[in-house]
Amino acid sequence: MTNTNREWLLAERPTGEPDQDSFDLRETDVPTPEPGELLVRTRYLSVDPYMRGRMRDAESYAEPWDVGDALKGGVVGEVVESESDAYDAGDLVTGEGKWADYATLDADDVAPVDPSVADPEAYLGVLGMPGRTAYFGLLEVGEPKPGDTVVVSGAAGAVGSVVGQIAKRNGCRVVGFAGSDEKTDWLTDELGFDAAINYKTTDDYRAALDEAAPDGVDVYFDNVGGPITDAVFTKLNLDARVAVCGQIAHYNDEEAPIGPRKLPQLIPVRAKVQGLLIADFATRFGEASERLGQWVASGDLKHRETVVEGLENAPDAFLGLFSGDNIGKQVVRVSAADAA
Amino acid sequence: MTNTNREWLLAERPTGEPDQDSFDLRETDVPTPEPGELLVRTRYLSVDPYMRGRMRDAESYAEPWDVGDALKGGVVGEVVESESDAYDAGDLVTGEGKWADYATLDADDVAPVDPSVADPEAYLGVLGMPGRTAYFGLLEVGEPKPGDTVVVSGAAGAVGSVVGQIAKRNGCRVVGFAGSDEKTDWLTDELGFDAAINYKTTDDYRAALDEAAPDGVDVYFDNVGGPITDAVFTKLNLDARVAVCGQIAHYNDEEAPIGPRKLPQLIPVRAKVQGLLIADFATRFGEASERLGQWVASGDLKHRETVVEGLENAPDAFLGLFSGDNIGKQVVRVSAADAA
Repeated sequence: MTNTNREWLLAERPTGEPDQDSFDLRETDVPTPEPGELLVRTRYLSVDPYMRGRMRDAESYAEPWDVGDALKGGVVGEVVESESDAYDAGDLVTGEGKWADYATLDADDVAPVDPSVADPEAYLGVLGMPGRTAYFGLLEVGEPKPGDTVVVSGAAGAVGSVVGQIAKRNGCRVVGFAGSDEKTDWLTDELGFDAAINYKTTDDYRAALDEAAPDGVDVYFDNVGGPITDAVFTKLNLDARVAVCGQIAHYNDEEAPIGPRKLPQLIPVRAKVQGLLIADFATRFGEASERLGQWVASGDLKHRETVVEGLENAPDAFLGLFSGDNIGKQVVRVSAADAA
Repeated sequence: MTNTNREWLLAERPTGEPDQDSFDLRETDVPTPEPGELLVRTRYLSVDPYMRGRMRDAESYAEPWDVGDALKGGVVGEVVESESDAYDAGDLVTGEGKWADYATLDADDVAPVDPSVADPEAYLGVLGMPGRTAYFGLLEVGEPKPGDTVVVSGAAGAVGSVVGQIAKRNGCRVVGFAGSDEKTDWLTDELGFDAAINYKTTDDYRAALDEAAPDGVDVYFDNVGGPITDAVFTKLNLDARVAVCGQIAHYNDEEAPIGPRKLPQLIPVRAKVQGLLIADFATRFGEASERLGQWVASGDLKHRETVVEGLENAPDAFLGLFSGDNIGKQVVRVSAADAA
């Protein structure tokens, strides 16, 4: 083990779209774990759209990153030094770490990773926060019933791809919006979506929905916002449910963007629109992990990760989320299995 | 009893703001009740904002009015001829009638009016559809808890004025938006609202809310839409509930109006926004009528009606809703108590 560590810092708060100037890579010493802590070497680092919000100096659900501080995020890593009875060196764990080669994590805040269930990187996607978000967001906010039509935006992403498959398990017709033919093919050919719309090559989303969702929309799981959402709102059925999970189209906006007002459309159909944060379901994470793990292990729930190689490319991986570079979960491979 | 009847027809579908040209007054014969029906002489006719939607040729929750057909609406009237065992001539009833001097109503579709509880016109307001809408909309969609701050737009209207008083009964801080000093004075001095904002003389609604709702907004009961709603959405607290009851600012729009997108604001606070139609609570109307009747009879629940005289002025009364002419429920007095 080298004694050199690298950590990404927030160099400056971006205005509008972030770029490389927002990030700075610092060399530090590898930290030493305190009692109860683990020194973890990062295998995989998660980059997620919500992190754009942490780059703002504004109170929100996720604590803002301070300029000059190390960036945080979900990691899967190998314990290289343990000051806890709960884990030994060599164990694989997942938790909230840093954009870094090494970080110390409190043993109470990590969960074990079982490579017999799925590849370790899946613990940042289908078996991690995105999978749990899909599970509770769809089932608890979307409340899908057999025969319902479920529309998902960002359908080929880490959350959307799981939402659509759970909706299919629940007997729904599932329609996804995604940004390339490769993505829409994956949705329909591999994941079992009934229809998928390439929003970058489709001009008229309402007409596309007339064909893909001829009976209207009962559940809309929204990861994106913007014109896709405008179109879906015009197709909401009586008692429709909208889970507002993400609005990536708007994360770089500096003020509330302008669009068609949607509230008048809610009255005739009595639709329910609800903001969704996975932290609200924390007491039930065990249930989600168990179910998702069973479905992944049996092969019923398919998943995919887009891997960028090297900690030095973590900002690129993050920035690529906003242009839709990823299929499934975007992760950064920081070290290989035999590197610890 | 004269044999001449007058009925208002839909003369043409309005584009944008309706005017007198949308209405035509026709003379007809007084109808004859069939078995099971009542011939009812209208005392009071209700004009309501939702009727703007019935002037469109578009499927919605309320059946569209056809051009050339008599306009329908809530009435309180006196039975002048009964072909039913359930009511006798002289009884006062309320139900869905016509914008007319006389109409036949199915005895199964009317409810008795008890003038010992309140003046008959109150059965079109606090004891009728608007009162029930306030009751279920606030309690079931808004879910107010003691200590919550409840904001109501259209607060001096038939629904809003009841919402605010029920919220006060539930131990909430209540803030209303209304369109004149007479209205805001009524809210704070008579109805017990904690604060009221005159939206026609206030420039900065967000600053006004900072003062009137210093702890943020837990429940927003929206009758209006537009810039008031934009401001309230920026103040929503964690787990806030928004009941979208009306959007009168938009009923004359010919296409979806443009405004700030609100969905991104819902995620950090996990707010729930729900379209509300009173018909969904039809099986529980008895509960609402009983509670509202008790509160009105005891004087705890105050109400007010704005009365326009004469069936010939019914279109004016309707059109005045869009300029906010009414305080409390807008009704039209079609005949006096001794006129049948």
